[in-house]
Amino acid sequence: MATTVAPVADTCSRAREASRWLASIDTATKNTALVAIATALQSRVDEILRANERDMQSGREVDIGDALLDRLRLDEGRVEAIAQAVRQIAALPDPVGEVIDGHRLPNGLDVRKVRVPLGVIAVVYEARPNVTIDAAALCLKSGNAIVLRGSSSATHSNAVLAQIASEAAISAGLPDGCVSLVAGGGRAELAELATQKDSVDLIIPRGGEGLKAALEEVATVPVIYAASGNCHVYVDGTADLADAERIVMNAKVQRPGVCNAAETLLVHESVAAEFVPRIVRALGEAGVEVRGDERTLALVRGSSQAPAAASEEDWGTEYLAMTLAVKVLDSLQEAIEHIGRYGSGHSEAIVTRDTASMRAFQLGVDAACVYVNASTRFTDGGEFGMGAEIGNSTQKLHARGPIGLRELCTFKYLVEGDGHVRG
Amino acid sequence: MATTVAPVADTCSRAREASRWLASIDTATKNTALVAIATALQSRVDEILRANERDMQSGREVDIGDALLDRLRLDEGRVEAIAQAVRQIAALPDPVGEVIDGHRLPNGLDVRKVRVPLGVIAVVYEARPNVTIDAAALCLKSGNAIVLRGSSSATHSNAVLAQIASEAAISAGLPDGCVSLVAGGGRAELAELATQKDSVDLIIPRGGEGLKAALEEVATVPVIYAASGNCHVYVDGTADLADAERIVMNAKVQRPGVCNAAETLLVHESVAAEFVPRIVRALGEAGVEVRGDERTLALVRGSSQAPAAASEEDWGTEYLAMTLAVKVLDSLQEAIEHIGRYGSGHSEAIVTRDTASMRAFQLGVDAACVYVNASTRFTDGGEFGMGAEIGNSTQKLHARGPIGLRELCTFKYLVEGDGHVRG
Repeated sequence: MATTVAPVADTCSRAREASRWLASIDTATKNTALVAIATALQSRVDEILRANERDMQSGREVDIGDALLDRLRLDEGRVEAIAQAVRQIAALPDPVGEVIDGHRLPNGLDVRKVRVPLGVIAVVYEARPNVTIDAAALCLKSGNAIVLRGSSSATHSNAVLAQIASEAAISAGLPDGCVSLVAGGGRAELAELATQKDSVDLIIPRGGEGLKAALEEVATVPVIYAASGNCHVYVDGTADLADAERIVMNAKVQRPGVCNAAETLLVHESVAAEFVPRIVRALGEAGVEVRGDERTLALVRGSSQAPAAASEEDWGTEYLAMTLAVKVLDSLQEAIEHIGRYGSGHSEAIVTRDTASMRAFQLGVDAACVYVNASTRFTDGGEFGMGAEIGNSTQKLHARGPIGLRELCTFKYLVEGDGHVRG
Repeated sequence: MATTVAPVADTCSRAREASRWLASIDTATKNTALVAIATALQSRVDEILRANERDMQSGREVDIGDALLDRLRLDEGRVEAIAQAVRQIAALPDPVGEVIDGHRLPNGLDVRKVRVPLGVIAVVYEARPNVTIDAAALCLKSGNAIVLRGSSSATHSNAVLAQIASEAAISAGLPDGCVSLVAGGGRAELAELATQKDSVDLIIPRGGEGLKAALEEVATVPVIYAASGNCHVYVDGTADLADAERIVMNAKVQRPGVCNAAETLLVHESVAAEFVPRIVRALGEAGVEVRGDERTLALVRGSSQAPAAASEEDWGTEYLAMTLAVKVLDSLQEAIEHIGRYGSGHSEAIVTRDTASMRAFQLGVDAACVYVNASTRFTDGGEFGMGAEIGNSTQKLHARGPIGLRELCTFKYLVEGDGHVRG
C-alpha cells in the first residue's frame, strides 16, 4: 500500500523486491496498469479533490503564497489532464527489450545489448502533486519501481494519488511495492532515501536549487540533476536576419520561465549595425528588458528603448524572465568561447547561412542540444518525439538532454553460446 | 608539458582548454598522434628503463614486496607490448561522430544524436606504469583530454611515460594539455583532483578497494568504479553436463584472479547426484578448493576430495583465487534469487538445454553480462569486439560492462532547421 508509514529503508527494500518482478513483466500488462491508473484517477476524482482541499487549507493557513497555492491546486480539469497524460504514456513504445546493438563474435558467440529497467527510481519533488502520477507512470512504463518523496505541503494530495496509482497497478498485475510514497517530507527522510545504495538505483529531483543542494550534500545513490539553462542564440554574420529575429523572439518570449528559453543574444559585428537596433526594438515592444554590452549600447544610443548596461554577472545569469543580455562579437570563435565560459550546456543556437559556420558551431559548442536555424525552445522530450519526459539533464553521463523512457533504463549484454569457453 | 608541477586545479584547467580543441580534431590526426606515441616509446626505451630502475630501487629499499615490484617493473618486452597496444588502439574505429539515433520531426526539424567526447577524464591508478599509456591512448582516441594521477611508487616511470605521450601527441598536432600527470601521489592531490567539478567530467579509478574508498569519500566529480565480480555459474536440470563441466572449469580455473572468474557454482537438484561428484573431482584435480553447502557435502561424503563446509560468508565472497563455493538448489527461481542476493551484477551464466530456463534466467538476472551456455570469462572489451577497455563497470548508469572507447564518450543532439520556432 502506498500510504503505510514504513521506515524509508523498508519502503525501498520492498521497491527493490518489486523491481525484480517488474523487469520481466510484458508491455501489455504494464499498459493495462497505466490505463487502470488513468481510469481510477477519473473515477476517484472527488476523493482526490477532498484531499487536495485539505492541503490547500493548510497552505492558506500558513500563507505559502499565491504562486505555490496555484501549483498545489487540483481541480477536475487538472485531474483529467493528469489521467490523459498517463494514457499517453501507455501509448508510447516500451523501451524495455529494445536491442541497442548486437553481433556475432568471431568465436560464434552471439552478443546483444538489450535495454532493461534501472530497477528502483526515487523521485523527490516539491509542491505540484501531478508529479506523483507523471513520475509513477514513466517509471512503471519503463519497468521500474518508484519511490516518491513529495513535499509536506502536498501530503494529503500525494498520499491519495500514490494510493490510487499503487492500487490500480497492483489490481492490473503489477507487484506490490511498485509505487510507494515515503511518509514525511523532511530532510531526515530525504537523507535516508538518498543513501539507500543497495535498494535505490537512481534519484531524480524535481524542484528548486535548495532541494538539489540538500541532495548533493548527502546522496550516495546516483542523482541526475534536472538542468538549469543559460542558453544562447548566436546570430552569425551570414544570418538571414528575418529568421534571426523570429528565432530570438521565440527563444526569449514564447515562454521565458523555462530552462530552454534564451538568456543571452550574441551578434556578429558584421550584422550588428543592422540587427541590433531591429531586435532591441522588437524585444522592447514585446516587453523584454535588454542588457547590452558597450557595443550594443552604442548601436542604440538615443533610441526610445535604450537598454541598460550588462555587467559581468549578466553573462552567467539564467533570468527565467523577460530579460535578455546582448553582446556584439568579432567572430564565431569568440561566440563559441563565450558559450563555453558562461553556458550551462543545455541548448545553444546559431543562426547562419554559412555551412562552415554551422559545422564549427556544431563541433565547438559543448551542450546537450545544439541548434542550427531553430529556436532553443525545442529541447523537450515531447518535441523530440520521445513522448513524455521527467526533466532535462545537462550532465554528460548516462542521460543528456530530455530524460524520457529510455533514459530511465540501463542495458545488459545477453551472450549465447553452445558450450563456449575462453582459450 | 606533462611533468610540470602545476597545482592540480591548474593542470585540470589546462586539460579543459585542451578538451575544447580535441573535440573537433579529426580521426586521422588522433591516429597519427597515437602512432607517434608508440614510436616515441620504442625510441626512448632506454630513458624509460632508467626511470623505472629508479622506482624499482626505491621499491626495493622500502621493501614493497615481490608482487608489487613485478607490477612496477618495465623491461624492453613490456615497453614494446605497451607500444603495440597503442598501435592497436589507433587501429580501432573512432567513436566520435557516430550517429546513435536520428529522425526528422513532424515539423521538419532534423534531429540526430551524435557521439562526442566527454571532455576531461581523470584516471587514478596504482603501481603499474603501463596504465599511464593505455589510459592516455584510450582517452585521446575518444577525443578526451586525460589527467593522470599514479602512485608515488611509480613516480619516475610515470613521469617519463606521460612526458613522452604528451610530447609525441603535441608534435602530431594535438593541443598542449591533452595529456598531463598530477605531481604527487598523496591523498591531498587525490582529493583536489576529485573535486574539480568545473574542469573534470569523469574519474576512473584503477586500483584496489582502498583507492575506491578514498575516492568515494571525497569525490564530487562523477566516478565510474571498476567492478568487483562475484560471478555464478548455474547448472540447470536440463544441462548438457559435459558442457557444464567445461564451462565451470573454464570460469574458475582459466584465470582465477580476475573479476569475470566464477566464485560460486549453483546446481539444480535433479542433476546434482550425477554432476556434483563429477565436478568436485575435476575441481580437486585442478587444485581448486571447494566449499559446499550441506547437500553438496552429502553427495561427496567419503570421497578423496571431500570439500569443506561453506559458511554464509562464502556466498558473498569474491575469492579471486582457486576456491569455489558450491550449492545445490531446488529450482531455477532459487538460483535467480541467490544471484540477486549475493551477486555483484557482473557476469552470470546458466548452462541449460531448455528454452524456458534460458529466457527466465536472461530476464530474471540483473547483471551487466548474462551468459547462456558460455563461460563468464568472456566479459572483456577485447572479447566483445570493442577493442581495448579501461575496466569493467557494474554500475547501471552510463557504462555497464566493459568500458571501451564508446563508454568514454557522451553525446549531443544536433538539430537543424530553416528558421523553425516553437508554436
